[in-house]
Amino acid sequence: MDFRDFDRLGRRDLIRGTAMLGAGAMLMRPLPSFAATGPMADIRKAAEAGKDASIKRLRDWIALPSIAAENRNMTEGAAYMADLARDAGFTNVEIVPTDGHPGVFGTIDVGAKRTLGIYFMYDVKQFDPAEWSSPPLEGKFVEKEGLGTAIVGRGATNQKGPESAFLAALHAIRAAKATLPVNIVLICEGEEEIGSPHFRQVATKPNVLAALKKCDGIFIPFPSQDKTGAVDVNLGSKGIIELELVASGEKWGRGPKGDVHSSLKAMIDSPAWRLVQALQTLVTPDGNTPAIEGWFENVRPLTEREKTLIREAAKTADEAADKKALGVNVWIDNLKYDDALIRLAQEPTVNIEGLVAGYTGPGGKTVLPGRAVAKLDLRLVPNQTRAEAEKKLRAHLDKHGFTDVEMNVSGGYDPTEVAEDSRLIRTELATYKKLGIATNINARLAGSWPGATFTAPPVSIPAGHFGTGHGGGAHAPNEYYLIESTNPKVAGLVDATMGFAEFLYTLAAIK
Amino acid sequence: MDFRDFDRLGRRDLIRGTAMLGAGAMLMRPLPSFAATGPMADIRKAAEAGKDASIKRLRDWIALPSIAAENRNMTEGAAYMADLARDAGFTNVEIVPTDGHPGVFGTIDVGAKRTLGIYFMYDVKQFDPAEWSSPPLEGKFVEKEGLGTAIVGRGATNQKGPESAFLAALHAIRAAKATLPVNIVLICEGEEEIGSPHFRQVATKPNVLAALKKCDGIFIPFPSQDKTGAVDVNLGSKGIIELELVASGEKWGRGPKGDVHSSLKAMIDSPAWRLVQALQTLVTPDGNTPAIEGWFENVRPLTEREKTLIREAAKTADEAADKKALGVNVWIDNLKYDDALIRLAQEPTVNIEGLVAGYTGPGGKTVLPGRAVAKLDLRLVPNQTRAEAEKKLRAHLDKHGFTDVEMNVSGGYDPTEVAEDSRLIRTELATYKKLGIATNINARLAGSWPGATFTAPPVSIPAGHFGTGHGGGAHAPNEYYLIESTNPKVAGLVDATMGFAEFLYTLAAIK
Repeated sequence: MDFRDFDRLGRRDLIRGTAMLGAGAMLMRPLPSFAATGPMADIRKAAEAGKDASIKRLRDWIALPSIAAENRNMTEGAAYMADLARDAGFTNVEIVPTDGHPGVFGTIDVGAKRTLGIYFMYDVKQFDPAEWSSPPLEGKFVEKEGLGTAIVGRGATNQKGPESAFLAALHAIRAAKATLPVNIVLICEGEEEIGSPHFRQVATKPNVLAALKKCDGIFIPFPSQDKTGAVDVNLGSKGIIELELVASGEKWGRGPKGDVHSSLKAMIDSPAWRLVQALQTLVTPDGNTPAIEGWFENVRPLTEREKTLIREAAKTADEAADKKALGVNVWIDNLKYDDALIRLAQEPTVNIEGLVAGYTGPGGKTVLPGRAVAKLDLRLVPNQTRAEAEKKLRAHLDKHGFTDVEMNVSGGYDPTEVAEDSRLIRTELATYKKLGIATNINARLAGSWPGATFTAPPVSIPAGHFGTGHGGGAHAPNEYYLIESTNPKVAGLVDATMGFAEFLYTLAAIK
Repeated sequence: MDFRDFDRLGRRDLIRGTAMLGAGAMLMRPLPSFAATGPMADIRKAAEAGKDASIKRLRDWIALPSIAAENRNMTEGAAYMADLARDAGFTNVEIVPTDGHPGVFGTIDVGAKRTLGIYFMYDVKQFDPAEWSSPPLEGKFVEKEGLGTAIVGRGATNQKGPESAFLAALHAIRAAKATLPVNIVLICEGEEEIGSPHFRQVATKPNVLAALKKCDGIFIPFPSQDKTGAVDVNLGSKGIIELELVASGEKWGRGPKGDVHSSLKAMIDSPAWRLVQALQTLVTPDGNTPAIEGWFENVRPLTEREKTLIREAAKTADEAADKKALGVNVWIDNLKYDDALIRLAQEPTVNIEGLVAGYTGPGGKTVLPGRAVAKLDLRLVPNQTRAEAEKKLRAHLDKHGFTDVEMNVSGGYDPTEVAEDSRLIRTELATYKKLGIATNINARLAGSWPGATFTAPPVSIPAGHFGTGHGGGAHAPNEYYLIESTNPKVAGLVDATMGFAEFLYTLAAIK
């Protein structure tokens, strides 16, 4: 599953869906030289001094890919993650077994007033070395035009690079003999790339849960900057269920169990037609609005504030460029761009990811397929839940007589919401402002991420993404993370490290 | 295209759809030793003497595969075909150019009262040697349990084996110094396996057309016997159009031109849903009856005679075995078997061969596809035509607002009909009877073949399949043709040769 790739690949470059706030006016001015004097100056010196060690840490980590889908290096990856945590100063570090691959947990308790949760993934996406221009486990340096020198490797930006930068901040604070201003709770998983199927088991282990509940919020270290240097702060995200609907002679009791010759259609029922008929009950005839019974029962419309954020963002957007990049002539219902962006954030969807039945090669083949599959993803908005959605979809199919159509859910997340006035979001905004970084508030990310593990009971804390810096190619060949920036608006490794340090001090100081 | 594989793979073994006639009572008795005395005895002696040459002719031919889809050996294949024709006694043999690959034409005019048309294909289906248990171009001998010794090779049964047996009959008649009792018109094509796109150009070339129109009928040499020795005689076949329906952002002007991230479904239209909505207008909600405007306008219902033939056949069928072989629990509308077989012959169909859109691999991928394809085949019955069907389908889609949904027709045939009292069919039945072979009359083959080139204007002659002998694996690995039969009910090469000789003399003598 790659529910999150929209976060990385498409969001800022294609659809802003955001409002320019605070430091927005600074967008075009060079990034200031992050805090050159005061207590941060010592930490910066330490970060500079520790840069080579930090790069080595990242490259060594890239050389050990943990891939849950391939059951590759999972035990080794968890142990390595635990060592990285211990090296950075975490205590009581434990490997947390699950019914799947293990998580890792640790804390740094300095007796501070505030506590920050940090979420890591130690796994990476699968890769095919043949598709890469440099070996994906070697972490080679390459020049990226308009950016600087980047490390290329699987996991470079998703998520080992930014995670390494966060660890580097802890190393630098310690090396500078500065006082860590907040307590830190670290929770890691090794199954993020397969949809976090057992992460809840890690987060709800009693000692982990108790530690998380003390946190003012939690974030995943994230290389948030695009090439303009601007970042997004998301106030939540849609949920998702991803599933296959399968019509088959086997389950239906009509039609063939395997493929038969197509001429037999005159006397044998067709599971492929069965699937088409079941599918078309799920949406309105234009294909744009879910028609599943009771689907909108718990949908909370966007607030006026959320709509305002989106409309404000739309004003600065380049609709023509976005349309061109997406290969789109018109938005749904011929909406104006701001209304389309509101619809993007507001509406739940039923999307066909793929259709597969019978003969799928070039030309034709005279078969009547015994089985037909639709791959769907259904995006959920607050206050829908994944459990509710699965139940309602099943009930809808049953009510329409499609009791035989299988519904194989492969994964999903609940929607998330984070209050704009939560300390986590306020700290993110204040930190970016202090760093002089243009910040956009996303009312709601139309993509999905596993943050509901934190935002929903029993954890119930604000959760999001934070970080300066830049990377690209998540889930793709030649994934990279920027190390030495030649772009004055975009942070390299040391500045990204300092961004995390700034966050910690800001969190300690903010109201 | 392999519209015809039902003829070979499924028809007799799975669905009889036939009536036991004439020699049916002989089904269980051994095949008589074909005409051991009289004028046929000399021909049989010559056929025996020529057997090794006949086998060599077949094996040499298998070694030269002409594959239109791969543009492989087409010139060579046509030249070889012409040589084979000349060797067998055809005169004025010419290679007939078309806009595609060439056909071959030749005649033997002995001044006889009757003329028989013979249709050959010199091309074969593609093959992957890795899937074969012996090299597909070597024509190795293998033992087939319950049958005898067969030649294994691409084209062995489809169609070089039975065609070689026919040529062997001409060689044997000449070697026996017997008089050929009928004139023969030979027409060959090299594009049968890609749907005969240019065969009409061959058949309507003025001198070819003039020769064909003189024929009492035309057949393709066919190894008609199943393992019981029984054969089918078909009184026609359904037509077909095979096509892709394509919904795309490109043509629609809505939705994306390529794949975009699935979260964008909330603001971008979906070509995949567009396809689903278009598809569901084509059939009744049960998926079983075409709902295309005017589709049944020219449909001729089966005659009482045709229904009787089918009902009679159903009496001898093993419904339970057929259901098991097809993996089917119930027929359409829970019909009784005889009614289902009548529906099989009578009804036009709209079948989904395949569905392809977006992500088709294992698991899911969060995309909104820019393009979705349904591969369809639509079987046509008399008096529908392919041209009519294409026009009506397009008009239906347009009327329902799907003017953007592309309809890419890749091929098709009109339905065929042959009168039960035509000289061709009467000769087939009389020959089989003379040979003591159990014969079933198929009112209408639910599969399709390019016979309409002959049965429709301007040629307008009866057309069908004829031949004893046995083969298997057409279009599949390890294709074979039986050479030395150890099954007393099934003809080997020499008996198949004699079957063709019998046909020629029967045609000359019949009323």
